[in-house]
Amino acid sequence: MITGKNYIGNQLSAKGEKTYKTFNPLQNIENEHIFYEATESEINEAVALASKAFKEFRTVSGTKKAAFLNAIADELLALDTILIDMYCAESGLPKGRAEGERGRTIFQLRSFAELVKEGSWVEATIDMGVPDRQPIPKPDLRKMMIPLGPVVVFGASNFPLAYSTAGGDTAAALAAGCPVIVKSHPMHAGTGELVASAIIKAAEKTNMPNGVFSNLNSSGIEVGIQLVQHSEVKAVGFTGSIGGGRALFDLASQRKEPIPVFAEMGSVNPVIILPEAAKNKPEELAKTYAGSITLGTGQFCTNPGLLLGIKDDNLSKFIQSLSDEIVKIEPSCMLHPTIIGAYEAKKQKALSQQGLTVTAEYQTDVATNFARQTVVTVEGNTFLENPTLHQEVFGPFSMVVQCKDADELEKIICNLEGQLTGTIIADDEETKKYPQIIAALQNRVGRIIFNGVPTGVEVCPSMQHGGPYPASTDSRFTAVGIHSIKRWVRPFSYQSWPNNLLPDELKEENPLGISRVVNGILIPSKK
Amino acid sequence: MITGKNYIGNQLSAKGEKTYKTFNPLQNIENEHIFYEATESEINEAVALASKAFKEFRTVSGTKKAAFLNAIADELLALDTILIDMYCAESGLPKGRAEGERGRTIFQLRSFAELVKEGSWVEATIDMGVPDRQPIPKPDLRKMMIPLGPVVVFGASNFPLAYSTAGGDTAAALAAGCPVIVKSHPMHAGTGELVASAIIKAAEKTNMPNGVFSNLNSSGIEVGIQLVQHSEVKAVGFTGSIGGGRALFDLASQRKEPIPVFAEMGSVNPVIILPEAAKNKPEELAKTYAGSITLGTGQFCTNPGLLLGIKDDNLSKFIQSLSDEIVKIEPSCMLHPTIIGAYEAKKQKALSQQGLTVTAEYQTDVATNFARQTVVTVEGNTFLENPTLHQEVFGPFSMVVQCKDADELEKIICNLEGQLTGTIIADDEETKKYPQIIAALQNRVGRIIFNGVPTGVEVCPSMQHGGPYPASTDSRFTAVGIHSIKRWVRPFSYQSWPNNLLPDELKEENPLGISRVVNGILIPSKK
Repeated sequence: MITGKNYIGNQLSAKGEKTYKTFNPLQNIENEHIFYEATESEINEAVALASKAFKEFRTVSGTKKAAFLNAIADELLALDTILIDMYCAESGLPKGRAEGERGRTIFQLRSFAELVKEGSWVEATIDMGVPDRQPIPKPDLRKMMIPLGPVVVFGASNFPLAYSTAGGDTAAALAAGCPVIVKSHPMHAGTGELVASAIIKAAEKTNMPNGVFSNLNSSGIEVGIQLVQHSEVKAVGFTGSIGGGRALFDLASQRKEPIPVFAEMGSVNPVIILPEAAKNKPEELAKTYAGSITLGTGQFCTNPGLLLGIKDDNLSKFIQSLSDEIVKIEPSCMLHPTIIGAYEAKKQKALSQQGLTVTAEYQTDVATNFARQTVVTVEGNTFLENPTLHQEVFGPFSMVVQCKDADELEKIICNLEGQLTGTIIADDEETKKYPQIIAALQNRVGRIIFNGVPTGVEVCPSMQHGGPYPASTDSRFTAVGIHSIKRWVRPFSYQSWPNNLLPDELKEENPLGISRVVNGILIPSKK
Repeated sequence: MITGKNYIGNQLSAKGEKTYKTFNPLQNIENEHIFYEATESEINEAVALASKAFKEFRTVSGTKKAAFLNAIADELLALDTILIDMYCAESGLPKGRAEGERGRTIFQLRSFAELVKEGSWVEATIDMGVPDRQPIPKPDLRKMMIPLGPVVVFGASNFPLAYSTAGGDTAAALAAGCPVIVKSHPMHAGTGELVASAIIKAAEKTNMPNGVFSNLNSSGIEVGIQLVQHSEVKAVGFTGSIGGGRALFDLASQRKEPIPVFAEMGSVNPVIILPEAAKNKPEELAKTYAGSITLGTGQFCTNPGLLLGIKDDNLSKFIQSLSDEIVKIEPSCMLHPTIIGAYEAKKQKALSQQGLTVTAEYQTDVATNFARQTVVTVEGNTFLENPTLHQEVFGPFSMVVQCKDADELEKIICNLEGQLTGTIIADDEETKKYPQIIAALQNRVGRIIFNGVPTGVEVCPSMQHGGPYPASTDSRFTAVGIHSIKRWVRPFSYQSWPNNLLPDELKEENPLGISRVVNGILIPSKK
């Protein structure tokens, strides 16, 4: 069923000479299929098709876009175990995780289908004309969101389904009315091709224009560079490392016509453990955090890589408990040899810094590509002075910073780079004692959590997944939830436009019955 | 009343050696006052104060921010003729324009006051927790918009009030909860100081933190560069030339922590004259457009610098009428010798291109700094092949492109750079004949106008002022209207957060009575 070819719109294509294979980290062997890297001409063809498709796709109704998105979900489910097996073979992740992630992917597609079918998401805003206003007439103005144009999506290594080929970025862009060109992730090219085939089938069944979706294979950086620099590409979505995201952001910013890049990148997700909480429940907390740090072999962007507290006996007890608990957990496989390689290298770099103490590291022999979970501690002033210690170690690694007092803790928080999340672990009464710490943390993150763990990103409208740089390249948007559609649209005004030529969303009679703001008054949806 | 000093928060400061004066273009002489350029230490002081003020200002209630914004409006009005006279002396613009622009500035301030007092603008979104959800509990999540941090505003030369010191960018940023540092426009530093004094008075009267506003003088580019590169500055607003806006965008993109720059820049605002319209009302159209092209000496960002039609006798008649009409208009003064210099240079560059015919140029002698309005025509293919002809000539200049047919017209539209506006002049029935032309135009602009002129930017929620690059650096936002507040805010989620610690906007009991989306259902405002 796997051809190894690119999808240039509806057509399979393999014009290139360069090939590669994916890898099974659990078995430590290459997978069998050969993938053909997209050539320059295939890339240009995909973009030209997307650009042509955009002319039609941007005016396709919400109902039809919903049918397309739901059909993608149906086709993904129809792939059944073929998809799940390929996912596992290319990621080393267990079947349960594969099924869970497929569920999340389906949920996202159906959420966006519901959103565009209902239609109010376009933020229709109408100010009716006043022809006899003095000194000059007031024109009739009607505004709504319209799609930007072809979007390039770079999938995540750690979410082969939910943040890759038909993941959040793709679903949001298609819902917005933007054709999508996926730069397939080389670590799961087979999963990518299967998902792409589902999207193409869905597009054909629901009569979407050819070019609304393409999937390009690539094991290196050239395909991505060419895509981001292409003048017909109008926006980029990316999930991955700071280095990768920043490189794309720089390319996009340096274009003659700069384009927005929404990159969701690194984060150490600081967790602040306030003294009373450390005192009252060190063991419970330790168990919870040992689980969160090692969840998915630490390969989540919301992994708690940094725990901060005020140095005292209770914090010491917590560190001891955390260290005891974390080594009880069975090590697991990382996604790819390059990822475990990076984990080991970054961990060693951190460990080589002065002032670090290892309090836990899984010792027993582990299989190839399995990661040893590790906990280290460091004093507040040492951490503050050494930016190397602020860097993410992607994997089951966490650093506990013992601050001498609340002032030092606040100072450290203020000096952190931007983060996806921040967590406060506190007794209910204790929060009142440290308002400045909570305020400082809020200023560095996109989401703040009370007495919980940062892992587990709920897909819902009130989720913010994004934050100050380098958590993401533009903190004004989210990568998760229906509001992520806002990354791919722009407001557009019609002035004195004839009613019959207006899109349905803005017509006087509101044929879609969507919610609109008319002359400053919110008129709720009729649905 | 003018000190020539900088406002570093509430304090006047003039530590620098470098000074400059403003210029009265109507009288062709320098104005009397001396302005002191801000030094590096004054810049750092202003940013440090803004950063400190942000800690308090970001949590100031909507009611209090509204009082501050209304107080600015009151203080501006209290400056009365002092402000109007200074405006006229520094711009050469007539008193009526000064008063009109002041009215617009006041209206903007009061609109934002109303917006934040009402409070629903924060887009509160709540998904309540489901503790017994299987397989894992659903956490309580609540999201709203929060301010980005200190914002730097670069005012416009052509709007000394409405898009400068207390203009749209400043009003929106203050409403959002962001302290503002204005890089004063050197051409109207006196107007800037007067307006700054009004803001400072208002800030003191309404107990805003010191540093919520600063005003820095500068005749060159150094102050702006230092501000945009300062790590504590979190966003930039700019109105001006493509060169200036792009330079700031590049600086901001190349920072260690890139920050958003919203630059509203150049536009030639294409106007498409369809054949039937040209046939039916050439004289009326010519009069209207002669007025729009010369309005404010052509110094509006929405000035119609490019008219496109299909070559026939009717279009020729229109060109003749436009040429006849435009030379009947009395020439007027441009804002500054450098602006008339640039107008003449860019006009000459355009006129030196092959294939251009001048059909109208005001001939009688004009005073120094007065601009001669000019109309030229060119064939479609000549225009298509020469990008120099696509560049804006800022001033009372317009180019009529005569296309050989609808296909060439469409091709030209597709090849235009991004624009603030596009206009269709057509008979009602004619629109159905040219859907591809309307679609192509829509794809290049932020606002589309039917049978009107692009000049005259209504300040209302449904106005989109911004568009594909280079009309603006980010087409996903507007520079005009209350939605422009979205440039300076980011979504922020609270997870499982105690109700008493939540901001009022997200508390269970909705004490502000604002509109919110709760579990996917829109609950309208109680006001």
